[in-house]
Amino acid sequence: MEIEKKFTVRSMPKLDDYDYHKIEQAYINRKPTMRIRRQDDEYYFTYKGEGLMAREEYNLPLNEEAYCHLKEKADGKVITKTRYLIPYGGYTIELDVFEGELSPLVIAEVEFPSIEEAKSFTPPEWFDKDVTSDPKYQNSNLSK
Amino acid sequence: MEIEKKFTVRSMPKLDDYDYHKIEQAYINRKPTMRIRRQDDEYYFTYKGEGLMAREEYNLPLNEEAYCHLKEKADGKVITKTRYLIPYGGYTIELDVFEGELSPLVIAEVEFPSIEEAKSFTPPEWFDKDVTSDPKYQNSNLSK
Repeated sequence: MEIEKKFTVRSMPKLDDYDYHKIEQAYINRKPTMRIRRQDDEYYFTYKGEGLMAREEYNLPLNEEAYCHLKEKADGKVITKTRYLIPYGGYTIELDVFEGELSPLVIAEVEFPSIEEAKSFTPPEWFDKDVTSDPKYQNSNLSK
Repeated sequence: MEIEKKFTVRSMPKLDDYDYHKIEQAYINRKPTMRIRRQDDEYYFTYKGEGLMAREEYNLPLNEEAYCHLKEKADGKVITKTRYLIPYGGYTIELDVFEGELSPLVIAEVEFPSIEEAKSFTPPEWFDKDVTSDPKYQNSNLSK
């Protein structure tokens, strides 16, 4: 079960010192979410059950050949983004800076070990709106 | 982890008294195996890691709409078969009677809780060859 909250941002932190991943991803189905992702030099297939804040998630390994084969079957746009990993209290803010057609969109995600912690989370000042419940900001919808 | 053996058959048992499922399935990728299946009125997506006798397997739910959407992305043939469930000792023989282009192919599969049990399995007289290690009999290859 993945529990996460999602926010737009008001201003960007200085990003030079943070680790990051280069991500390319696409969808072969939207409900349930079936996603392929290249993260740096690794390839994954992800299945997510229904739901917004908490949903079942499976991450399964792919190889490059399978990734390229499945990318040809993608629905809609291929999304590219840089994901910065920003420590914040005991959490990690994943700051997705979208590229290409979706630029200059930026979305921050934070994952939690429990729904209680998700509910009591105090976001940093540079976060703007909580868009966890807004389907518009789901990557599967951004790919449309 | 799924542990199973696969056999061709020498002769057919009388099937009238056994439960069965009507199965339609197709593949959207072969390595790793990514399969969609309709079994009676239920829909599944299955991911299988590499390997022949023992491999990692995930069965995840699909809905009819997702199944139909993914079927359009299938590689090769859609397989249809009737799967008879035949009790045998403490095991269940799954006897797949293929239809359409693959008819009159029949394959028996038996699943085991451990590799030891798989290795010590004594097949019934009506089984023919053990084809567990023959990639030709993998459904993903039969769909080619």
